[in-house]
Amino acid sequence: MSSWNCVTASGGADPRMVVVADLVAALPEGVVITDPVAMEKYRHDWSREASAGTPAAVVRAEDAGQVQTAVRWAAQHAIPVVPRGAGSGLSGGSSALDGGIVLSLERMRAVQIDTDCQVAVVEPGALNIEVKAAAAGHGLWYPPDPSSYEICSIGGNIATNAGGLCCVKYGVTTDYVLGLDVVLADGTLITLGGKRIKDVAGLSLLKLFVGSEGTLGVVTRAILRLVPAQAPRSTLVASFPDVAAAARAVVEVRRTRRPSMMELMDRASINAVEDYKSMGLDRSAGALLVVQSDAPGAARVEEIDAIRVTCAGAGAEEVFITDDPDEGELFVEARRIAFPAIEARGALLLEDVGAPIPLLPDLLAAIAGIAVRHDVEIPVVAHAGDGNTHPIIVYDAGDPAAERRARLAFADVMAAAIALGGTITGEHGVGRAKKAALPDQLGPDVMALTHRIKNALDPQGILNPGAVL
Amino acid sequence: MSSWNCVTASGGADPRMVVVADLVAALPEGVVITDPVAMEKYRHDWSREASAGTPAAVVRAEDAGQVQTAVRWAAQHAIPVVPRGAGSGLSGGSSALDGGIVLSLERMRAVQIDTDCQVAVVEPGALNIEVKAAAAGHGLWYPPDPSSYEICSIGGNIATNAGGLCCVKYGVTTDYVLGLDVVLADGTLITLGGKRIKDVAGLSLLKLFVGSEGTLGVVTRAILRLVPAQAPRSTLVASFPDVAAAARAVVEVRRTRRPSMMELMDRASINAVEDYKSMGLDRSAGALLVVQSDAPGAARVEEIDAIRVTCAGAGAEEVFITDDPDEGELFVEARRIAFPAIEARGALLLEDVGAPIPLLPDLLAAIAGIAVRHDVEIPVVAHAGDGNTHPIIVYDAGDPAAERRARLAFADVMAAAIALGGTITGEHGVGRAKKAALPDQLGPDVMALTHRIKNALDPQGILNPGAVL
Repeated sequence: MSSWNCVTASGGADPRMVVVADLVAALPEGVVITDPVAMEKYRHDWSREASAGTPAAVVRAEDAGQVQTAVRWAAQHAIPVVPRGAGSGLSGGSSALDGGIVLSLERMRAVQIDTDCQVAVVEPGALNIEVKAAAAGHGLWYPPDPSSYEICSIGGNIATNAGGLCCVKYGVTTDYVLGLDVVLADGTLITLGGKRIKDVAGLSLLKLFVGSEGTLGVVTRAILRLVPAQAPRSTLVASFPDVAAAARAVVEVRRTRRPSMMELMDRASINAVEDYKSMGLDRSAGALLVVQSDAPGAARVEEIDAIRVTCAGAGAEEVFITDDPDEGELFVEARRIAFPAIEARGALLLEDVGAPIPLLPDLLAAIAGIAVRHDVEIPVVAHAGDGNTHPIIVYDAGDPAAERRARLAFADVMAAAIALGGTITGEHGVGRAKKAALPDQLGPDVMALTHRIKNALDPQGILNPGAVL
Repeated sequence: MSSWNCVTASGGADPRMVVVADLVAALPEGVVITDPVAMEKYRHDWSREASAGTPAAVVRAEDAGQVQTAVRWAAQHAIPVVPRGAGSGLSGGSSALDGGIVLSLERMRAVQIDTDCQVAVVEPGALNIEVKAAAAGHGLWYPPDPSSYEICSIGGNIATNAGGLCCVKYGVTTDYVLGLDVVLADGTLITLGGKRIKDVAGLSLLKLFVGSEGTLGVVTRAILRLVPAQAPRSTLVASFPDVAAAARAVVEVRRTRRPSMMELMDRASINAVEDYKSMGLDRSAGALLVVQSDAPGAARVEEIDAIRVTCAGAGAEEVFITDDPDEGELFVEARRIAFPAIEARGALLLEDVGAPIPLLPDLLAAIAGIAVRHDVEIPVVAHAGDGNTHPIIVYDAGDPAAERRARLAFADVMAAAIALGGTITGEHGVGRAKKAALPDQLGPDVMALTHRIKNALDPQGILNPGAVL
């Protein structure tokens, strides 16, 4: 139970109901829901993180003013606010809290494209795919592409500073955020940045809010940088005897080339995908690299061929190349469905650890050792060109001993990444699932600094308490 | 006089001298200087900003430990610390304060290249050109290229989140900072980030320090991302009847192309350069665009030709194209020497205002109006592809009335940028020269938030007081 719940112990009319009635009355009909059945889907994100509680209400805000109303109300009563986008998070960053409110941005979905400025002005509930589609309608491109881009919201992308597949060449969400409207913990609405490209006036507050997982404010509008449409891509798929050879190829390719995608699947994830849906992957490969080049014109053929030579030199056993976009997309799709494919094998704990790229073989070897030690299956897919891996720990949800072993493995994988100078999360965020490991990565001084900033911006601690910190 | 100086009014031995003696004793011989003649060059940056005072001492730290010693001493005695790189700043960000110390990082210049990780591990006093050269020695490239890259330090680049010419395609300093060691206001040394590319564990503290102009901490080491060497470039120079036509060309080119440079010179700056050194520029042009493409292989020819067609369509009168690197570099050099060329005409107030790119003609028209209204000369060069302009207000330093008019024009140019949804500084920083205008851009709520963060990190206010805030 949250500390706020304890006020109900004082007897008389449940004070929670009284103050929730104030919130309901302050907002238009239908914005606030309190029916437990209707609220159920707002309790969890995709991680089904175990601490998720039951909120006192869910606010489905329609505009920034309603967000302000809800946050002011929460501030007045010191009630926790959990901001929520599409609920596709993978770290429990939007798990509901007992007695708190869930502030859903799902209804704020407007997307406007300013073609002259080359920006999208976006509400946080808009899906990543909707922004991409709106931009594409004007010959423009919003690059960040989480694997979940069809179902994840821009607000969630900003909250976690989401990455994706093309980030190896085009950067992550923060690189595209030019402006934000943010509702602070006291309900103040501030505007940071704008449609200008370069701006160093004052502290980089904009960048501080990106990746803050709803702990510093609630984003109600974003101005996102767009670029001209991506050039056609060629795709290369190389099979390697083991992940070490594939990682060597990644390091060598990066010395001279900037591919627009560089994904890795290990043998276990290849076979999980093939078990789930036959995609024609080589089940006997120790690792596959899926690489794309979007170099313009004839340079693409030259670049893909150079990458082929490098892969061969690093020990690739087979290399397949295609200029056909549909055929290339099939391999990217095989990589993308790894998550549902592995989900079909049991309950999952999804990792997001990263390491300096040359240490990928060490990280992957450590993960293999952890799998053996705890007797769990840990297939791995990776944004290899960024050193960001997704080991996926599979266990039988009905077997408490297996779940216990999986949780030990989950902690050990993060510890292994930290020991290699890596990170516990490259793009999913800390949320609630990884916060126990955060101090091990950051150390006491950086944790103390983090708390100072959190306290400066949210002195009551009402914004997404229990996430990150 | 700073408030700290007031303690000397209490009589007896000058307490300043006593505490400075402690500092001298705490550091190796030669690190601390107190001789006024030797300290003179540490009082100003290039802006010769008028408020610069006389420091009690200059600390020329040799390592992070000495930085900690100096900051701990300053914290103990509540003495202001002005961090300083190469002193090439243009906003008075490192102007000395009466009675404070200048903490020079000029002796901390180590540069190490990790070719496998593709990063440079750099001390803050290293010059930008030294990092570029070290990277180039391994076939790698550190893109950010302020016009002053031959004389400016990486520490200063990080402090201001410096931009440059290639940023239109390759981004600014913050996009390349993967890790920082920072000495906080109490002397604690923290390490943020590392050699991993993607990392979202905890708040984006790394990004908060970039661009903080020495007000939140002192950077003692940076890990900078490198990329493969830039491809050969072709250069296009187009003359336009006026800046509005040139700005139209910029907007049109950006719809489909990503040139690696897109610089603008107006008629006044063209003629200032030609007066200074004959570079063969067309004195009759209303504006010149200098554009480069580094698209790979044959795509470069195609891209430059497409840009030529677009420039012609936007009203270009003459377009010159060269694939010869030396010839191309001559035009870039003509753009780069605009600052010294204009400096030869009198005293300068250098602006750094930006606007959304389609509003460049409005901004430039406003600047022309301001020049007429205040009877001053304001040549303009611009990183046009980013909407970032450098109007340079020229005045006769011996004429107080002219200086007064120049200062009025300086304020009006910033106000014009703000009115257009732009910024008072795109890459130079606020420093002391522009801080009066910062609240006009950010507004009271963002200023209040900025103060909260400043107070959380530097409660005594000893880090670069008077800069930015």
